[in-house]
Amino acid sequence: MTEETTLLFEKLNHFFENRKFADLRILLIDMEPADIAGFMEGTLEEKEMIKFFRLLPKELASDVFVEFDADTQELLIRAFTDKELKAVIDDMFLDDTVDIIEEMPANVVKRILKNSDPEDRKTINQLLEYPDDSAGSIMTTEFISLSSSMTVETAFERIRKTGVNKETIYTCYVTDRKKHLIGVVSVKELLLADKKELIEQIMDTNVITAHTLEDKEDVAQKFSKYDFIALPVIDKEGCLVGIVTVDDAVDVIQEEATEDIQKMAAILPNEKPYLKQSVFSIWVARAPWLIFLLITSTFTSLILSGYEAKLAPVFLAFVPMLMGTAGNAGGQASVTVIRAIAVDDVRFRDIFKVILKELASALLIALALGVVCFAKLMLLDNLFMTPKITVDQALIISLVCMLSIVLAKLIGCTLPLFAKAIKLDPAVVASPLMTTIVDAVALLLYCAISIAAIG
Amino acid sequence: MTEETTLLFEKLNHFFENRKFADLRILLIDMEPADIAGFMEGTLEEKEMIKFFRLLPKELASDVFVEFDADTQELLIRAFTDKELKAVIDDMFLDDTVDIIEEMPANVVKRILKNSDPEDRKTINQLLEYPDDSAGSIMTTEFISLSSSMTVETAFERIRKTGVNKETIYTCYVTDRKKHLIGVVSVKELLLADKKELIEQIMDTNVITAHTLEDKEDVAQKFSKYDFIALPVIDKEGCLVGIVTVDDAVDVIQEEATEDIQKMAAILPNEKPYLKQSVFSIWVARAPWLIFLLITSTFTSLILSGYEAKLAPVFLAFVPMLMGTAGNAGGQASVTVIRAIAVDDVRFRDIFKVILKELASALLIALALGVVCFAKLMLLDNLFMTPKITVDQALIISLVCMLSIVLAKLIGCTLPLFAKAIKLDPAVVASPLMTTIVDAVALLLYCAISIAAIG
Repeated sequence: MTEETTLLFEKLNHFFENRKFADLRILLIDMEPADIAGFMEGTLEEKEMIKFFRLLPKELASDVFVEFDADTQELLIRAFTDKELKAVIDDMFLDDTVDIIEEMPANVVKRILKNSDPEDRKTINQLLEYPDDSAGSIMTTEFISLSSSMTVETAFERIRKTGVNKETIYTCYVTDRKKHLIGVVSVKELLLADKKELIEQIMDTNVITAHTLEDKEDVAQKFSKYDFIALPVIDKEGCLVGIVTVDDAVDVIQEEATEDIQKMAAILPNEKPYLKQSVFSIWVARAPWLIFLLITSTFTSLILSGYEAKLAPVFLAFVPMLMGTAGNAGGQASVTVIRAIAVDDVRFRDIFKVILKELASALLIALALGVVCFAKLMLLDNLFMTPKITVDQALIISLVCMLSIVLAKLIGCTLPLFAKAIKLDPAVVASPLMTTIVDAVALLLYCAISIAAIG
Repeated sequence: MTEETTLLFEKLNHFFENRKFADLRILLIDMEPADIAGFMEGTLEEKEMIKFFRLLPKELASDVFVEFDADTQELLIRAFTDKELKAVIDDMFLDDTVDIIEEMPANVVKRILKNSDPEDRKTINQLLEYPDDSAGSIMTTEFISLSSSMTVETAFERIRKTGVNKETIYTCYVTDRKKHLIGVVSVKELLLADKKELIEQIMDTNVITAHTLEDKEDVAQKFSKYDFIALPVIDKEGCLVGIVTVDDAVDVIQEEATEDIQKMAAILPNEKPYLKQSVFSIWVARAPWLIFLLITSTFTSLILSGYEAKLAPVFLAFVPMLMGTAGNAGGQASVTVIRAIAVDDVRFRDIFKVILKELASALLIALALGVVCFAKLMLLDNLFMTPKITVDQALIISLVCMLSIVLAKLIGCTLPLFAKAIKLDPAVVASPLMTTIVDAVALLLYCAISIAAIG
């Protein structure tokens, strides 16, 4: 939070506490909705919330409302009269209403739907039916549509008449009578064109679209690739049913990155901001993978207990180092490939390129690590170890270190690609699971080689 | 790549190989620049590149050019005549020119600057001086500025006259004579206002801005928070010097997520797409942390070799399990907090809230894991182990497992916050380093407790 904002928040609080509501409103009118919501949630008690919300300038109320957390929204809806609820809902974009409905308990949803216009209610119900991760679930149905036979002048008239409640007016969609999407034209093009020109002369007919059921992550990638501010969404019949705006794409990109990071760290995805997560929900997100990984570690215990008696004591001391190095090396490869798949830099057909690149770099890395490992054993560890590590032993340990790096890299880079190919989530399969496999492989290699060489 | 795109690419190739250039151009005119660049880089030989580029419709050439990788851009610039180079540069937005210049070797930069307009050259040099991660480095200087005394009608005239070359025209900036930013007005507001109204009557004077030196990551967060399509950038004196557009913010968000993911996986950040990274650059990015972690693993080797003789063999077999569980548990906490810091959900002042939340959930998680661990030892491991694990031994192992989970979670959640407080990078300090600390702590705990209890 900047100093400026802190100061502003203090002023708000002062005016509110001292009931200087006129001054308060003057401050509020010029503020960003997100900041007002931030102030209310960060400063006010539950009871003051509704009082403060009623003081908001009418045109700001629903803009602020959509910025609240689901908990605050529920609190307010329960406190609203039907009239207040209707006013807020009528002013919201339909995709925002749908987002809110998805978070509310059934009785609140009922009240929201009861207080919506019949026409809106129909659209809301349609939007609610799209799967959670689809383009349909994040689109809005409020866009500007034009017909190809309009002139630029009539197009502007239409924008002026229907634009107030649209989420974006800057990209206009040209449809035929059956609502098939036949072109797009931007307000920039309209402004720079002659008033008498026909829309069909200036519209762009090669339109990049999304399908209602397309994964929202793929839709977000299109924004990142093509620099759009809105993307039209069409149904099976090619009819335009909605648009996704860039602000929603930004949210998807943020959420998907967070989700991938969580999965790579063996956490079940959790969409809530950290400080809003309950202790129980943290438990639910984290315990399952820990339990799974604990149980799969049976492999390493078995390997170790099987070989333990035969393994020279000096080798045992370096088990954590070898398993750690193999795990880190494999993790580097798997995380890199997982992210490359997520941002669409790598596909399954690139698998041989990936393997070659990883193999070549793994050999170089193994070489460097092998030399460092040998030097470390002889020079650093031997300062403290009794009995001293012999040259033969150091050579064996370094060799296993190098071998397990190469193996770990190969396992790490191929697992995510295979996961993707069989439509599993690369981040889940390849990160926590990779560790289990690499651990067992590195340990087995170590025991086998060191016993064979010395024994 | 969709089937549609594959088909289109085949057609392009066919027309190009058979020298049907007129047909080729008809296809190209309607394509997205990013797709044309994708086709050229994916399909054409180096020599064909320049030939194909010369066939592009004039108005598309520079749009396609900015979509290329740096390598392709350099190849083409070297092949361009001065006249061709000038045409491409003149048509590009200045921020794109700057991005390209930053990737080129000195002699290519010289040629680019030589072929720029003197006025542009001055701006380019100014933009090049902003630090790499600053708002200044990603902004463009081409925006629409209005004065507050204009009417809506004159504003539109100005937009029509100056808008062609602006990256966005949808947010217009109102400045005074000294170029101080005094308000913003959107084209939507202009379109919905009366022609005779004055800009000062409809402009919004509470403008969220970025400073030229502000971290570009913070700037991108503002887009995510406020849903802007452009954000004005001001200098120390409050003068408007440029704008950042949402497409650049999307790129920053993607890049920063990738960078954080790389750092958490002990990789030095590397901006190039995976398949474009050389084997050597992969080595440079990955070997340093592996070497560092290898050397710090000296701690675990020392602990283990010191206690090895006194430790009952049955305990040794579970060293990897315990260290693995502690590492995973700590990683969950650190990664969660690192991401929460990155998306601005958590700040240093929240440290006690974070510790409380982590402690409470760690206790719950430890409880679950303790029970599972004990059951696994007695039921699963005892199927294979000889001699069998006794109840006492299983209790000790489970207890250490629980303790190290709680400790790992506490270390994992506090390290990123302290790193942030002393202005170090949370992702670097907290992820690879956390493992080293947690490994040593868990191992020390294990050896000490099991020897004390049995010994």
